[in-house]
Amino acid sequence: MDVADRGLTSPEVDFSAWYNELVLRAGLVDRAPVKGTMVIRPYGYRIWELLQDELDRRIKETGHQNAYFPLLIPQSHLHREAEHVAGFSPELAVVTHAGGSELAEPLVVRPTSETVVGEMMAKWVSSYRDLPLLLNQWANVVRWEMRPRMLLRTSEFLWQEGHTAHADAESAMRETRLALDIYTDIARDFAAIPVIPGEKTPGERFAGARRTFTIEAMMRDRRALQAGTSHYMGENFARAFDIRYTTESGELGHAHTTSWGMSTRMLGGMIMAHGDEKGLVLPPKLAPYQVVIIPIGRGTRFDELVSVAGALLERLRAVGIRARVDERSHRSPGYKFHEWELRGVPLRLELGPRDLAEGSATLVRRLGKGKESLRLAALPEVLPGLLAEFQESLLVRATEFRDSHTRPVSDWSAFQEAVASGWAAALHCGDTGCAERIKAATAATPRCIPLDAPAESGDCIYCGQHADFGKRVLFARAY
Amino acid sequence: MDVADRGLTSPEVDFSAWYNELVLRAGLVDRAPVKGTMVIRPYGYRIWELLQDELDRRIKETGHQNAYFPLLIPQSHLHREAEHVAGFSPELAVVTHAGGSELAEPLVVRPTSETVVGEMMAKWVSSYRDLPLLLNQWANVVRWEMRPRMLLRTSEFLWQEGHTAHADAESAMRETRLALDIYTDIARDFAAIPVIPGEKTPGERFAGARRTFTIEAMMRDRRALQAGTSHYMGENFARAFDIRYTTESGELGHAHTTSWGMSTRMLGGMIMAHGDEKGLVLPPKLAPYQVVIIPIGRGTRFDELVSVAGALLERLRAVGIRARVDERSHRSPGYKFHEWELRGVPLRLELGPRDLAEGSATLVRRLGKGKESLRLAALPEVLPGLLAEFQESLLVRATEFRDSHTRPVSDWSAFQEAVASGWAAALHCGDTGCAERIKAATAATPRCIPLDAPAESGDCIYCGQHADFGKRVLFARAY
Ligand SMILES: [Zn+2]
Ligand SMILES: [Zn+2]
Repeated sequence: MDVADRGLTSPEVDFSAWYNELVLRAGLVDRAPVKGTMVIRPYGYRIWELLQDELDRRIKETGHQNAYFPLLIPQSHLHREAEHVAGFSPELAVVTHAGGSELAEPLVVRPTSETVVGEMMAKWVSSYRDLPLLLNQWANVVRWEMRPRMLLRTSEFLWQEGHTAHADAESAMRETRLALDIYTDIARDFAAIPVIPGEKTPGERFAGARRTFTIEAMMRDRRALQAGTSHYMGENFARAFDIRYTTESGELGHAHTTSWGMSTRMLGGMIMAHGDEKGLVLPPKLAPYQVVIIPIGRGTRFDELVSVAGALLERLRAVGIRARVDERSHRSPGYKFHEWELRGVPLRLELGPRDLAEGSATLVRRLGKGKESLRLAALPEVLPGLLAEFQESLLVRATEFRDSHTRPVSDWSAFQEAVASGWAAALHCGDTGCAERIKAATAATPRCIPLDAPAESGDCIYCGQHADFGKRVLFARAY
Repeated sequence: MDVADRGLTSPEVDFSAWYNELVLRAGLVDRAPVKGTMVIRPYGYRIWELLQDELDRRIKETGHQNAYFPLLIPQSHLHREAEHVAGFSPELAVVTHAGGSELAEPLVVRPTSETVVGEMMAKWVSSYRDLPLLLNQWANVVRWEMRPRMLLRTSEFLWQEGHTAHADAESAMRETRLALDIYTDIARDFAAIPVIPGEKTPGERFAGARRTFTIEAMMRDRRALQAGTSHYMGENFARAFDIRYTTESGELGHAHTTSWGMSTRMLGGMIMAHGDEKGLVLPPKLAPYQVVIIPIGRGTRFDELVSVAGALLERLRAVGIRARVDERSHRSPGYKFHEWELRGVPLRLELGPRDLAEGSATLVRRLGKGKESLRLAALPEVLPGLLAEFQESLLVRATEFRDSHTRPVSDWSAFQEAVASGWAAALHCGDTGCAERIKAATAATPRCIPLDAPAESGDCIYCGQHADFGKRVLFARAY
């Protein structure tokens, strides 16, 4: 990695180039042989694991069980739910040969698993006692991308997909909202991203869903990123796959199903929500290394400092801090400072001969200005608080950034201005054609109808027809 | 699940039928729509997660980092290592269409990841400072199976695959053996399977490897199961993918690589190593539920017992025991006993009105005879010891079983007898043709050359030529 060799493109100059350079140079991902696919390198994968740990804990805590459904799905199964197949057909990768011969029926590499899960649920559900059936899987999925983007849109990505079946609409809707709450909390409390939870307008729904909910995050280029979705399917999939059950009173009913997913795309969101001209800025809760210790000196003095740093490392680990010593002797301190800034480590501790003589270390925050001397002995006690402060400051900064770039607008020219530099909250008729014309004119799309927006009525910002949702819709250019 | 409705085929009568029925009826797996693939249901997946947790911990502890490599590999990449492609070609699933059109080059669904990892390592390794490069991934792989068997041979399975690159043969061989040690320990200490670690004979090597090591486990039908493998590739893949580095003295050298994997097949091994005519017998360390509590009573009495059981559950969880209360009111105690025996829960606690009056619970061990009354108050203190005892007893039983069915043999008729009912340890010439003739005559194959076998020389058990390995080779019929 030649991270310190040349500067990173400034995100102010070219956000897209900045992102593309950064994900590679920070060692998060690499280009894989097949166009549109990626390798997630250890540094990036560790962030994913930390996110996974927390998400998996929340998913289990709320009564879901993990399972694993197969990668390959008969093409005909996808066709059972008409909207679903229409939505996914253009993105499918298809296996036509296996075991040395052509298959009688082509197999689709799962783009998502509603169909195969539906098929199995129909086998497993027969009585009201079998409901709710609360499942989740961690898996890879393939959706062929013509314009791939590392972590944001790749032909293969990793995610969790929750799939549940319920006796009635109320229970299924509660579940849909529960998953959305989990995503909202994880984004806020771990990724330090103050997402807006809301419902998608009809034109933006998941293929086959009755209602789709989303969390929308603002990136530092002020575009929106959909960072997690939760779908209420109604009886659509239950009818397509025959998921029926006997009620307590002996009647036969269709189950109501849901599905919800969060993916490695979230890593792209974290990069774009917090990163700056120096590189990544990682929230401590998801940082592979929360603290990097850099011994500064030469020769035997260096070895001595490395050994002091090693002892400090053990003490920090003992209090649950993820720390690392950069003990490379062939790299200069300056090179290391740049590299760990690029890689977004929240706190840096410099340990030079003078620090050592004073029994202290020099602290540099990834986002702060200036340096600060801290007593070595006090570090295990002091650092957890500083990390919590750093985590909180990221959320505050991102919230202020989002709020200062979100405007309620009531006329078309204010709308155009707002979405050119941020998000607009506007009344909308709900018509898909109208939304398409807004997109053609401004590149902005309806992101969601925020759950907590106050009731408001009036006319559509674009066409002037009566607004449909009883509250404002968020519009933005989006990833 | 109609687990108690009809008996399970006896493993003594038809081991294969017993296995096939058991994996379905215990709720471990289910048949998926595509022939040869499976769904891993929550009960089976939980066992896999418990195994994963431990294996992942050991892998990280020894300096490896997790990463993720893509599912799809250009067909031409597989061809770069001649033995490798020859070995895997018959099992490949091939994607020929994606995104609505035919691909210029077909893509292979990874059967294993040496080729794509090799490709990336060539990019990442340039100096001796980049070595060793110690990577691991958790992934699904596809190998088309003509004669599939749940968990043992399915067209898709889950595994971890370690991939490492080293500066020299010594370091790579140490790594190969380290991975084998991890597998040996995990099998023994968690799955309670006393595996035999050893080296594969040339005819049984991994496609493209210079040396292959394996752990071999004895199932209760006395067949062998390869439960994990570790390969030393020499410079084969480094030459095929150009993984070169500059040594400290400035020369250019090829790296030496290794790979090693353990899969969901291990679950099949656990089932067949410990199960009996009543069903699964799970080692406590990998059991989703180590203790099941069954309240026995009717009406309000039942509700009262359920509530006592719930309080007990919390106290058991507080000491780290995975316990569950079976509070279904529409199932009889007898049904529940059968079901949890079928599902292999190590300890059952029955809680009836008389137990309650005495402040006790009735303990039944999955493998023990008779019942035992234990004071409720003492359970959190007593059960961990009983679980450890159960875990240990499984290992002892499996070790005795293995040893009593393994015979050193020195003549052909004793060999034939030994492999008809167990394992044979015999001298072998090492010739692949000779091994094939032995297989044709007895269905037995060379499983491994055990690492700890004493030195011994003499003539081949079959052809009488000079024996090649300096020690006895284990032969067995195998899965
Ligand atoms: Zn309109
Ligand atoms: Zn021979």
